[in-house]
Amino acid sequence: MKRIAILGSTGSIGQQTLEVIKKLPDKFKILALTGGNNSTLLAKQIEQFRPALISANEVLDTYYPAKYLPMEDIASHPDIDLVVVATTGKAGLLPTLRAIRAGKQIALANKEILVIAGEIITREASQFKIEIRPIDSEHSAVWQCLNGEKSRPTRIILTASGGPFYNYSRQKLAEITPEEALKHPTWKMGRKVTIDSATLVNKGLEAIEAHWLFSVPLDSIEIVIHRQSIIHSLVEFCDGSIKAQLSLPDMRLPIQYALTYPERSPNMYIPRLDLLQTKSLSFEPARRQQFPCLAIVLEAGKRGGTYPAVLSAADEIAVELFLNGQITFNNIAKVIYQTLNMHQVIYNPSLEDILSADAWAREVAMDIAGKKVLQK
Amino acid sequence: MKRIAILGSTGSIGQQTLEVIKKLPDKFKILALTGGNNSTLLAKQIEQFRPALISANEVLDTYYPAKYLPMEDIASHPDIDLVVVATTGKAGLLPTLRAIRAGKQIALANKEILVIAGEIITREASQFKIEIRPIDSEHSAVWQCLNGEKSRPTRIILTASGGPFYNYSRQKLAEITPEEALKHPTWKMGRKVTIDSATLVNKGLEAIEAHWLFSVPLDSIEIVIHRQSIIHSLVEFCDGSIKAQLSLPDMRLPIQYALTYPERSPNMYIPRLDLLQTKSLSFEPARRQQFPCLAIVLEAGKRGGTYPAVLSAADEIAVELFLNGQITFNNIAKVIYQTLNMHQVIYNPSLEDILSADAWAREVAMDIAGKKVLQK
Repeated sequence: MKRIAILGSTGSIGQQTLEVIKKLPDKFKILALTGGNNSTLLAKQIEQFRPALISANEVLDTYYPAKYLPMEDIASHPDIDLVVVATTGKAGLLPTLRAIRAGKQIALANKEILVIAGEIITREASQFKIEIRPIDSEHSAVWQCLNGEKSRPTRIILTASGGPFYNYSRQKLAEITPEEALKHPTWKMGRKVTIDSATLVNKGLEAIEAHWLFSVPLDSIEIVIHRQSIIHSLVEFCDGSIKAQLSLPDMRLPIQYALTYPERSPNMYIPRLDLLQTKSLSFEPARRQQFPCLAIVLEAGKRGGTYPAVLSAADEIAVELFLNGQITFNNIAKVIYQTLNMHQVIYNPSLEDILSADAWAREVAMDIAGKKVLQK
Repeated sequence: MKRIAILGSTGSIGQQTLEVIKKLPDKFKILALTGGNNSTLLAKQIEQFRPALISANEVLDTYYPAKYLPMEDIASHPDIDLVVVATTGKAGLLPTLRAIRAGKQIALANKEILVIAGEIITREASQFKIEIRPIDSEHSAVWQCLNGEKSRPTRIILTASGGPFYNYSRQKLAEITPEEALKHPTWKMGRKVTIDSATLVNKGLEAIEAHWLFSVPLDSIEIVIHRQSIIHSLVEFCDGSIKAQLSLPDMRLPIQYALTYPERSPNMYIPRLDLLQTKSLSFEPARRQQFPCLAIVLEAGKRGGTYPAVLSAADEIAVELFLNGQITFNNIAKVIYQTLNMHQVIYNPSLEDILSADAWAREVAMDIAGKKVLQK
């Protein structure tokens, strides 16, 4: 019986993790739940799963007497075996570090953590002999393909659905509303990652995440648009052989794999892929002119230091402003780009350097968005 | 330094194995070559690779003083580490059994061996703790995807190029000449397997081979037409996850993998797959009406006993007769079907039962073809 803590249980990944665990009651026990802004849902989850420990922004109205602890203390609590990091943004960073140092198994859905602090996280994980289990479908695909292989991959090919606006012109992109942007064609995801998918920021972040998870240089990570979201990613080996992982798009599959690894667990609830129904899988290059965020993110990843932290913070602000109707879709790229341009980078940053670059970037991004330099 | 014997070195797989070994002179040494009907090429190979042992139908005109031995004695010779079985038809059966009993590593390209004697071969292999390394591209794909997995596959999806006549009508198929049939669209292969690809007999034989190699029931093995020959096969696990192996079609890749397993060896000579050039991968059901051989072969595989041996022998005869211009393309299926229909099956056959079923089937198939019952 593996005892699980879910950090961010009210988000999309958190909810789907609970769904998966509900189907495997002999293998997993929810020992801790943590949630931020959705207290109503968190209270419901607590009544249903009866965790011993919780972390929340306020005292919740539940009859079940769970103990309140800060998220960091939950992540490193001696009764926990595996921590699912399903927070967004930088919220999960310190808890993840604490979990690593406490020797916990970690299933990571929060890509920003590796983007902003990949060097620190992977160094500590290797020191404490923790293999980070990815939950992102692309990274889960790569991880599954690396199973049993003796050599590092020579190339990783990340697939991207391209999001709902993939064939739009720059002009048409300028007029997108938040409501349109939140309708992802193939994946059921949270708001932030859905907008990041539409701008291709998400795919750039995933490349940086893959770089850290699998020790592959960014130049050996390719991005290919694959509209059907069936092949979740591919890995090439030194002999030229490529392995791929496929399924219908359903986050519960990579979540379950991260929980049951190295075993797989039979299930009925994941719909099976039928290639004869799919008929065809297509591949196209990313339209980098229409979606300038991709190149901006990859460049920040290559430069390294505090750039990825600035990138991630500026993107969080820009997405929020877009969702509030304060900037246009195309201006997301401009806010990120101009914030990065103004940044004085620190290489080999400490955790403090990263957090202060993050804070700096949030202010600057707000400033840039407010100044209407963008409207030009 | 691994010491290699190639059984059938003058065939297509044998020649390509020598090509691969020539590129990896630090890892492999050719210790034995055996060839049947192409003495001129075998003599050339002997001059070039200087094997200590050879097996041939006649004494060859070479200055290099190799020792002649029967193929069975080569396969089990104490100086050999790995035996590449690249013979066709049943020629490799007894040598393979001898190699298994002598504890040799075995790389198997000769699918008929598992088709006609799968039960005996896999029983002996498990008794002598020999993992048979498949060389067929489809089986190599499955094998690579199973690497590191703890659970058996729940489904195997074998891909088939469909051969050169995939869109032909029954009428048009009747008029195919041997020359047309020998032009395979994607793979460079021997004559027998090229015709078997065009009739889809080959894909049926591969399903039976996969059944024995991976202990998966024939009902859980699907066949999907995939014209591009890029995805070489797929494996589904109990959680619904599917893994696939991809590359441009080039037999040197699965050959090299079978030799270097569990390692992979870097190479420059295998062309790399570029999905952006491929653009699209398509999947269609097999056209079973136009290609009745597929159902006939699968049915013989399901019935088991001596049926697969009869099937394999009748097919060998039918392909030979077609290549000699003695029967039409469509009559290949009829010869096989009628031979199977006349067979008195023996279940759980001994090696002797299998060999006598084979001999019986060859005679009956010739008879059927000669009687012109087919022309109706």
